[in-house]
This record gives sequence, C-alpha cells and structure tokens, in this order.
Amino acid sequence: VTSAQTAPAHVDVELADAWTYGRGILHGGHLLETIAAAALEHTAHPHVVSVSAVYAAAPSVGAATIEVEPVREGRTVASLRARLLQDGAPKIDALVTAGTVSDADVAPLRLTSAPPDLPPPEECVGFSRSDDEPRNGIQEQLETRMDPATAGFVRLEPGGGAEVRGWIRSRTGRPNDPLFMLTVADALPPVTVELGIGGWVPTVELTVHVRGVPAPGWLACVQRGRLLSGGWLDEDCEVWDSTGRLVCQARQLARYREPRA
Amino acid sequence: VTSAQTAPAHVDVELADAWTYGRGILHGGHLLETIAAAALEHTAHPHVVSVSAVYAAAPSVGAATIEVEPVREGRTVASLRARLLQDGAPKIDALVTAGTVSDADVAPLRLTSAPPDLPPPEECVGFSRSDDEPRNGIQEQLETRMDPATAGFVRLEPGGGAEVRGWIRSRTGRPNDPLFMLTVADALPPVTVELGIGGWVPTVELTVHVRGVPAPGWLACVQRGRLLSGGWLDEDCEVWDSTGRLVCQARQLARYREPRA
Repeated sequence: VTSAQTAPAHVDVELADAWTYGRGILHGGHLLETIAAAALEHTAHPHVVSVSAVYAAAPSVGAATIEVEPVREGRTVASLRARLLQDGAPKIDALVTAGTVSDADVAPLRLTSAPPDLPPPEECVGFSRSDDEPRNGIQEQLETRMDPATAGFVRLEPGGGAEVRGWIRSRTGRPNDPLFMLTVADALPPVTVELGIGGWVPTVELTVHVRGVPAPGWLACVQRGRLLSGGWLDEDCEVWDSTGRLVCQARQLARYREPRA
Repeated sequence: VTSAQTAPAHVDVELADAWTYGRGILHGGHLLETIAAAALEHTAHPHVVSVSAVYAAAPSVGAATIEVEPVREGRTVASLRARLLQDGAPKIDALVTAGTVSDADVAPLRLTSAPPDLPPPEECVGFSRSDDEPRNGIQEQLETRMDPATAGFVRLEPGGGAEVRGWIRSRTGRPNDPLFMLTVADALPPVTVELGIGGWVPTVELTVHVRGVPAPGWLACVQRGRLLSGGWLDEDCEVWDSTGRLVCQARQLARYREPRA
C-alpha cells in the first residue's frame, strides 16, 4: 500500500462533437467515462469500480485537460481524484475507485432486484429525428429501444410515470466492458420526459457503481425518479446485461424547471 | 458566478472518541458531516445539498485537518472539494454541493416512494451492550429503535433479509437539520447483520443527497441492499421525517467478507 504524494498527472483530451446533443451539450456519461479512463491509467487495478462526479460547469467541444491525482493504491482498492479543466477552469470533479469488477464466474451472494420486464428490442420504440431538430449525438453513438409503456413522450403523449425503460447498445461496435457502463448509466432520457416537464435536466452529481463485467449484447436499462421537489430530482439507473446480471447501478441528482402552476 | 481559483483553506478539527465504535473506528456518517460542515463555511449557500465521499483510509481519533477548495460559487448551486487529512496523509475525499434545501412549505411535484411501515418506537427494539463489549459511540450519540421484523440480529437470530429499518433520533439534544442528515444516513447497522455475515463492513464510497429540511422528532430510516457479490455490496438509505417527508437519500458501496463455502 502506498499513499501517493506525487504531483498530479495531466492528460490532454479532445472532447468530440460526436457526443453532443441540443446546442452543443456534451453527454454527461461520456464525459464521466472519459475522466475515469484517464484516471485508470494511473493505477495498477484493472477496472473502475465506482465514480462520483460533480458537474460544476458545462464543458465545450474541443481541447480539455484531465488532472489525475492518485490518492491511495491499496491491495484491493485504489482511490484517485480527477478533474476535467478547460482553459484552466475546473468543469467536472470526480472521485474514482479502481479495483476488480466481478465477471460471470462470480456467483452473487444475494440479489434483491430484478431486471426490468421489457418487450424484445424489435417490439420497442426507437428514436427518430426530423431535419429541423438539432443533432443528438447520444442517439448516433448508441442505439436505444424504449419500452412502449414508457415511451409516450416519443409520440408527444407523456405517460405520466416517473420511470423510463429500454434497451441500449453501441451503434459503433464499441464492446460492452466495465468502462462503457459509465456512458450507458446516463444514456436513457430523463424521467421528466414522461412527466411532461420540458427543458434541459442538467446533472449536478452522478455516482456510478460498476457491479459486474457485462456480457456482449443488448443492455436492459431502467431509470426511476423518487422525488421531484423544489427544482431537484433524483434518478436511479440500473443496467442489466443480456445474461440477466446486474452490472451497473447509478444515481444522479439533477435540476429541473418547475412547471408554472 | 465566480470560478474560485483561490488557494484551499485549512480547518483544524479534533475527531472525538465519542463517535467511535469497535476498536476505535470513527463513524463514517459523522466524519461526512464534519467534512461537509467545514466546506459549508466557504460558500454563501445555506445548506449542503449533496456530498459524495471516498474513504481511502480510516482516520483515527485526534487532530485532523480539513482542506476546503471552493470550485464554483453559482447562483443556485456551489461546488467545493474537501479532503480530510491526518499527519499530511489524505484519508477521506469529498465533493460537496451546497444550495438551499426545501422546507415543508415546498410541495413536491412527484413522490414515488413511501415511508417504511414501522411499528411505533415504543414497540421497536433498542440496542443494549454488555460490559465486555467495546463501546458503541453511535448508539451513545443516537437513539435507534429497530423494527422487530428486521432486528433478528439483536437476538443473534438474523432474519435473512437484505433490509434493516428503524427510528433514529439524537440522544444529546442535537436538533434535526440538513447537516445532521449526513450522520443519520449512515447510522443504521449494515444489512449484513440480518444476513448473518459477520465482520466490519467498511464504506468505500458514500453519497448523501439532502432532499428536505427535516421536522423535529423521530426519523424513520430504511436501508436496503440490492447486490452482494464478490466482496462488494450496495446499501441505499432513505430518511423520512416525522411529518412523512422524504428528507434524505443515501447510497454507499462497501466491502464485506465473503463467508466461506
């Protein structure tokens, strides 16, 4: 075990337009994966087990720097601090825990949750975009098939529930691996779409725990909100792999615009 | 809005034996509150809304320093980094979000969770300690009354569920306020006690979101584990106040010792 007192390392990255949506907003999950991947270069452990991040300011497409500070390199777990900066200003702060994520050989001691009950992907609802809408990089990078029961918003008829469910997989051949879960955990639309609440739902805090190495194939994802109050909402996301294993749990605290009474 | 580029502030604190249990282990929730309280001195916002922390190493009773770095002071939200050090070595890293927590005047837009169904406190089970057991500072500081349905472990007959529920209030006259929720959110015993899994369950990552200013009186708390696998478990804690409002949501990722087959 070493308590690292070394100077932080700096990693230059390019934030790609491919992951923007709306007016150049970069996808929060992809940013989280980008930061965590940089941190993972500074530990001997193979996987990111957990990341907590605070989105202090929205980064822009272009050059950015990730500052990585190893905090403690333990036998089972390593801790690192990481920060994404642009033009010297901090945009996202993260705490990264690295270790080894269980593969399918590890039998869970206890599981009290169950995968979402989704129709097969071919009976689910994809996203379409008309030419006058801004690009949606998330949908270009990821294929999402929503459960029709929580996809009323696609028909502009929000179903009224605080839950969205669907299948997700890469469109670009990116394989399922533990790091990719950080992107997937923030890829469903916010639950506000089904509640008929418009506007951007900026993430303030996002924590993702990776619980298993995902098998290849579609990922079954479900996102639930428990409390929307005073402009703040929580969203829990579970990701299940094609063999029915819970591979990722995420929670975020976000802002929403309170509808006028 | 200012992007603070000031040097970090340093706050000296004394970690009190009063909050230890077992062999001098300091209570993780109380440590979280101590760190967050120091951070709150460096923002104009009145409340801690969210804290994420990684427990890289266990601090000891005695002198410690909390390093606070304001990251961004916004109109609605402030972000700060905070770190607890002892003898110059980082022990706990935290990301703190400050803002205004809703009081009872704010009507929730949507709530999809419900308080735990607990018998009244006088029908619940307290903790007792025999003289040959080490002190339990958490029980000295907090009064906990467990739902008999999840208190089998008190009779050394674990009930087998991955859930514990009970009432909590201060024994020392500490009023309920948003900061106190950070202590309460980690004060129930780990769900492993009802699963018959012995040993310390050290927190690796703990995130607490404060969702409402709590009313005076007993707090109804419930903690659930969803997946125990490969030595890692998650625990979700909800805290409800005496008027039935959800005032706090927490999740932690912790380690447990896998029982021998």
